Amino acid sequence: MAEIQWNKLGAYLKETQILGSIQNTLYWDQNTGMPKKGASWRSEQLTYIAKILHRRNSSEEFYNLIQSAKNELLDTEQNSNNQLFIKDKERNINLLIKEFNRAKNLDPKLVESLAKAKSKGYESWQEAKKKSDFKVFLPFFEELVKLRIEEAKQISDQYLPWETLAQPFEPEITLKWLNKMFQPLKDTLPELIKGISKSKKYHWDLSPASQQILCSKLLDEFGRDKDLVVVGKSPHPFSITLGPNDYRITTRIVEGEPLSSFLATAHEWGHSIYEQGLPSQSHQWFAWPLGQATSMGIHESQSLFWENRIVKSKSFSKRFFKKFVSAGCTLNNYFELWKSINHLEAGLNRVEADELTYGLHILVRTELEIDLIEGGLPAEDIPEAWNKRYGELLGIKPSNDSEGCLQDVHWSEGAFGYFPSYLLGHLISAQISSQMERDIGSTDDLIQNGEYQKIIFWLRNNVHKYGRSVNSMELVRAVTNEELTPNYFINHLKSKINDFC
Amino acid sequence: MAEIQWNKLGAYLKETQILGSIQNTLYWDQNTGMPKKGASWRSEQLTYIAKILHRRNSSEEFYNLIQSAKNELLDTEQNSNNQLFIKDKERNINLLIKEFNRAKNLDPKLVESLAKAKSKGYESWQEAKKKSDFKVFLPFFEELVKLRIEEAKQISDQYLPWETLAQPFEPEITLKWLNKMFQPLKDTLPELIKGISKSKKYHWDLSPASQQILCSKLLDEFGRDKDLVVVGKSPHPFSITLGPNDYRITTRIVEGEPLSSFLATAHEWGHSIYEQGLPSQSHQWFAWPLGQATSMGIHESQSLFWENRIVKSKSFSKRFFKKFVSAGCTLNNYFELWKSINHLEAGLNRVEADELTYGLHILVRTELEIDLIEGGLPAEDIPEAWNKRYGELLGIKPSNDSEGCLQDVHWSEGAFGYFPSYLLGHLISAQISSQMERDIGSTDDLIQNGEYQKIIFWLRNNVHKYGRSVNSMELVRAVTNEELTPNYFINHLKSKINDFC
Repeated sequence: MAEIQWNKLGAYLKETQILGSIQNTLYWDQNTGMPKKGASWRSEQLTYIAKILHRRNSSEEFYNLIQSAKNELLDTEQNSNNQLFIKDKERNINLLIKEFNRAKNLDPKLVESLAKAKSKGYESWQEAKKKSDFKVFLPFFEELVKLRIEEAKQISDQYLPWETLAQPFEPEITLKWLNKMFQPLKDTLPELIKGISKSKKYHWDLSPASQQILCSKLLDEFGRDKDLVVVGKSPHPFSITLGPNDYRITTRIVEGEPLSSFLATAHEWGHSIYEQGLPSQSHQWFAWPLGQATSMGIHESQSLFWENRIVKSKSFSKRFFKKFVSAGCTLNNYFELWKSINHLEAGLNRVEADELTYGLHILVRTELEIDLIEGGLPAEDIPEAWNKRYGELLGIKPSNDSEGCLQDVHWSEGAFGYFPSYLLGHLISAQISSQMERDIGSTDDLIQNGEYQKIIFWLRNNVHKYGRSVNSMELVRAVTNEELTPNYFINHLKSKINDFC
Repeated sequence: MAEIQWNKLGAYLKETQILGSIQNTLYWDQNTGMPKKGASWRSEQLTYIAKILHRRNSSEEFYNLIQSAKNELLDTEQNSNNQLFIKDKERNINLLIKEFNRAKNLDPKLVESLAKAKSKGYESWQEAKKKSDFKVFLPFFEELVKLRIEEAKQISDQYLPWETLAQPFEPEITLKWLNKMFQPLKDTLPELIKGISKSKKYHWDLSPASQQILCSKLLDEFGRDKDLVVVGKSPHPFSITLGPNDYRITTRIVEGEPLSSFLATAHEWGHSIYEQGLPSQSHQWFAWPLGQATSMGIHESQSLFWENRIVKSKSFSKRFFKKFVSAGCTLNNYFELWKSINHLEAGLNRVEADELTYGLHILVRTELEIDLIEGGLPAEDIPEAWNKRYGELLGIKPSNDSEGCLQDVHWSEGAFGYFPSYLLGHLISAQISSQMERDIGSTDDLIQNGEYQKIIFWLRNNVHKYGRSVNSMELVRAVTNEELTPNYFINHLKSKINDFC
């Protein structure tokens, strides 16, 4: 079977991927190593790469390569006896066409303005957060909102702007569908919170050095290959892939929160192990769409799985308690550690939130950004609207913008439509975990026996290895034999509260 | 004064500089953070950037931009009342033309063969060094020598091949001139070594953590701005500039050598503070030739200054001794610390060598590579010739190739002509330091009073700020009012030995 055009397209995609991975390397360094004063030159580097990438992704040359590969594929289709592989190839082509159109529709000037606005947004957000002053960030935020709405309009008139912006994270998402998923949560979660007032808070702490050692032991426990996965520190934990064999995760130490870095490490490990399991691993699809994560909801389901299903389980506390004691933990027994890890309390901080209140954080942010993009909410009203909704949904109010609307990085880079993925991830994780237990037994038992590789094997074969060959909802259906529903998550929360109070 | 063409050329150079600084960022990450398995993808990224850079630096577009800017400059020259600025501009243009011709004269096939030979040379050298077997490296080394001679011939018929290869590091260098500098050293240093047998070796060590703290305190002492200069760890210490306000240095811990990381930190600081003082600082010339270091000899003179003139001085030991004691140093007094830092002993390893024997390492390597390129010395005879010359000059012989002719990376990448810069740096540093003392008083006094900023101010104004507006020998003449001579360095060594024995 001749694959001349196909290979030409592959070579083009590889160069694009090289540039993309360079962009990721610059981002990694920006967040883990770069001196502060390097920011403005870094922004010039990133703008430059973004410009070349956009040019490549919307060039006539690229379009012609896709078309030629498509025609070649159509020609060989009839004679091939490997229809499964042909189907994958077709899907690659279709996704490329879809993304090409997305890029092609954008005015290159807008792309450049956006890159600059993101970088300035991020910079001013850092300062605003430090000073706890939303006004420092406001003009750059307004610019970002304006430019991203403009972007959405250039891309599609079929979807609402917010939907268009959210679709790179969750393909084909609509407000109507999202509402169907989230409304039951909005109806249930605030009620459930009222039941958690009795969850005892244990007061203890660990030195930064001890926390770092524990994080390292956690990754050893999960089977991290040090020649493949590197750990750094950054203001906001993240996971990123810099090459087919180059994975990075970061964590941060939060004073007075001895479990924060530990849970973040488990979370980012989940992201990373998903990326490691993508079909890119073999280089087969690394430069192709099928080598990518199918959606951020699925991505988050994987990180939340390791954070909530593994590290927050009773058997994990039992297994790891001695290591915590060696690190200086003053709790009396593993049960206290488990209660401490699972402490439920409505707090102001999303990243530090427990499983139950986490969803409410997301509901607030999602509603706010939909109002910003679709409902005409002025950016300057964000602090007030934020505080009001926190009062309504969580029953608490931030005392300043830094612990309120400035806490998260996403909006500072104009990433609207991302937040729902976190909560969708909870839903997906709950539904998929339930299937995993039916397939290979209770998670508690597996952890007790240290059978992490069995878990990873199941995840690889049922979730990771598909990449973008199926979309997220198809994947959920394929793994669990039903449509995504919030019920598994709600039931999980109810049972956790029962366990506790 | 219209600067239309000039600014167009500037914009082109800026894009080139952005790419160059991205290359540097990838190199930095490769050496300080990248997981081992990321190596092969990183090499693809670097090859890609190198390809684009070479294309930009030898393109017709670039040539035309230079010519247009040159013509515009000639037109405006007569009317300008700022002849100094015009002179700088002319020099920028001339350096660009010189480098363009160097790139342009090369057969692209040779460029490709060289890139491959370098990569194979490096690979086989690593294996050869591990096995301590020069024969593993030999065929690739022979190929490198052959190709680089071919390269030199394509570039210039005005200079000898070795001279042409050395000129990117030391512009306009000739063998005749080099011999004038080095022969007095060859005549003197072996004699001096005989006098150092009484230099006592102190046995002590520091934990890696303590060494790290001391390095950090050293940089604080020198006035490092943490928002500008970041420190990392790497297998070989280096200094690199990633942007006009983004400087990085690395160090490494060597077991049993408590001062190795400390001296390396001072050394790399010297490189970095030179780069920080270049006229690029103001963005004025950052993308232009004048924003660059004028030669590797000058660069090394700056690193050697901080390593040898500052940290190896008596007053520095006096000032820093308490900090060493806090870090766990078991020496009895600052005088022992000073003796320990200045311990003189003929050893086999260049990087760990003292001020006196260091020069001999360089003489051996320089003579050998000149014989290879100009004297018809067969590559296969290198191990024997190496060992013979070590016996003659240093009075010791390596027991195997790994600690002998395979110890350094330079030749494995075909970098001939680089070694002399290290020794020229010693000569320049000695001569310039002497002038500095005449201008602002004894270095010992300045250190005693912690007046590092006064030293930096002098270096900035007399050395750093000139960038490539003068070449290295012009710079030495301008600063010291005489031609470069080895006498200052020889006198410095003699006085150090007198102090000691």
